[in-house]
Amino acid sequence: MKKESVYLGIDIGGTNTALGVADRNGQILIEGAFPTQKHKIVSQFITQLVDEIHALLDELNAQFSLAGIGVAAPMGNYFQGTIEGPVNLGWGEVAFVDMLKIHFDLPIAITNDGNAAALGEMKYGAAKGMQNLIVLTLGTGVGAGIVVNGELLYGEEGLAGELGHVIVRPGGRKCGCGRRGCLETYVSAPGMCRTAGILLAESTEKSRLAHVAQSELSARKIHEFANSGDAIANQTFEFTGAVLGEFMANLVISFNPEAIILFGGLTQAGNLLLIPAIKGYRANALNIYKKQVKILISKLNNSHSAILGACVLIENEISKKLQT
Amino acid sequence: MKKESVYLGIDIGGTNTALGVADRNGQILIEGAFPTQKHKIVSQFITQLVDEIHALLDELNAQFSLAGIGVAAPMGNYFQGTIEGPVNLGWGEVAFVDMLKIHFDLPIAITNDGNAAALGEMKYGAAKGMQNLIVLTLGTGVGAGIVVNGELLYGEEGLAGELGHVIVRPGGRKCGCGRRGCLETYVSAPGMCRTAGILLAESTEKSRLAHVAQSELSARKIHEFANSGDAIANQTFEFTGAVLGEFMANLVISFNPEAIILFGGLTQAGNLLLIPAIKGYRANALNIYKKQVKILISKLNNSHSAILGACVLIENEISKKLQT
Repeated sequence: MKKESVYLGIDIGGTNTALGVADRNGQILIEGAFPTQKHKIVSQFITQLVDEIHALLDELNAQFSLAGIGVAAPMGNYFQGTIEGPVNLGWGEVAFVDMLKIHFDLPIAITNDGNAAALGEMKYGAAKGMQNLIVLTLGTGVGAGIVVNGELLYGEEGLAGELGHVIVRPGGRKCGCGRRGCLETYVSAPGMCRTAGILLAESTEKSRLAHVAQSELSARKIHEFANSGDAIANQTFEFTGAVLGEFMANLVISFNPEAIILFGGLTQAGNLLLIPAIKGYRANALNIYKKQVKILISKLNNSHSAILGACVLIENEISKKLQT
Repeated sequence: MKKESVYLGIDIGGTNTALGVADRNGQILIEGAFPTQKHKIVSQFITQLVDEIHALLDELNAQFSLAGIGVAAPMGNYFQGTIEGPVNLGWGEVAFVDMLKIHFDLPIAITNDGNAAALGEMKYGAAKGMQNLIVLTLGTGVGAGIVVNGELLYGEEGLAGELGHVIVRPGGRKCGCGRRGCLETYVSAPGMCRTAGILLAESTEKSRLAHVAQSELSARKIHEFANSGDAIANQTFEFTGAVLGEFMANLVISFNPEAIILFGGLTQAGNLLLIPAIKGYRANALNIYKKQVKILISKLNNSHSAILGACVLIENEISKKLQT
């Protein structure tokens, strides 16, 4: 009996690494997870990852055959097969695909988390059938996957779409990258905490935010306070949405996409973020586009999306090779 | 004897329309021009255009055969074959390709001037052999042609790349589009005149600019004054270059191109603009790109470039159809 091809997707995050085996319909058959952050050295991480993969494959029903491995990681470079030293992993630049190929004689590919999210949305999510779209991942930082004519936009070195570092407020907030006014200093979980701090300082209104130290604050808490009617927490979402909306107006002028899909932790606030974002978009949109761009929140499961995107990456890669 | 295929390129500008017949090597064999602006009604414009084309074709040596017509126009829409009502033409939305097809039974295509410039640069200019590049046309306004994986980025409706209207200074200068802070309110000929006016007003330095009324000022005059050592005219170029450089840093983050090619009237100032632009780029560039993006001024003849780009447009179109 011919075995059914399945794919292994690995989602490397700053805190945890999740992995799963999916079939061609995006059904996750088995999955696992382990902490990334305890591994300060990449070779130790690889050792555990290989063990976890073998444990997972041992569980795999004999009717399935693993066809390839896809990896989603911050600063994952599709062209080079590398992870290019993102701050939150602390491994420096790593030839990740080559290191994994020592252990598995299979097609392996890597891309960054924004691109993986876009691949997942195109095959299983809100972007099915779309040729031109942008996925923005809004969490601790901002990532993006940009699709032009049905293909991911990689650019010359595979480093296109680092939209979190587009300067949206020249001379604005200091960013971890050393520059000022980057999108992710405003539209991210830490950016929202900074906004809340400023709005609280500028206001005379009573707010639950006054009882939380900066180090204890989180986007989740601001969300909770906003839901309980806290005015400054609500203003924080309004400001964040306004900056996001203005940025999306610039994206539409540049790329003329069919849709912008919002993904990641910040979108758990739903309409608290989406309504001011759409308002901000409309206030800044150039008046030449007849079709209204669709601004959507992803409906894909946050924890499965990058695994599925990584599976789509390697599935596409294998089918491209079959065609040539 | 088999005739050699040649192409007619038409460059519709707000002031003048230029047309020329070019061979497959970009050699312009014959050319003509007439004023656009006297025609307030598009049908009158088409009547003169058709006459001019016939006059040109009468001169064409019998060894050549016209294979198709390409058109470059502000707000020319490749997908629709339309010119979508740019302010400086005043025709409203026009089904230009269909109107021209009544007179010529040939393949005809249209695109906007930025895209035509990019096609010209890719075949004959600084972008030969490049797959990822951006051409910025800096003149009365700002246009762009963005190339991703060797193909023009059109987006969902053919309206991608209207980069002159990217908001670079939120709440900044009022733009003709009704919004504020658009790139072209800073980095364009009128934008430079506005900058000169502000710098003059803020300064106590003596300047030749003090003797020129706003309505008489031009980028050319500022260029002339800067060359003669006028401090405020020089500061005008420094400021303009700084905004352009910062914008290019955002473009590189978004598109990761191999090169950005500057084109159009403003580039006649050469290093007066280029040096502060490169300085502004470096001050704002994200530090992850190993290959330095090339920032170049086009070497194509300004008046021939759009004609050639329009010829490349229709040549590509015909060869695509032959392949399918």
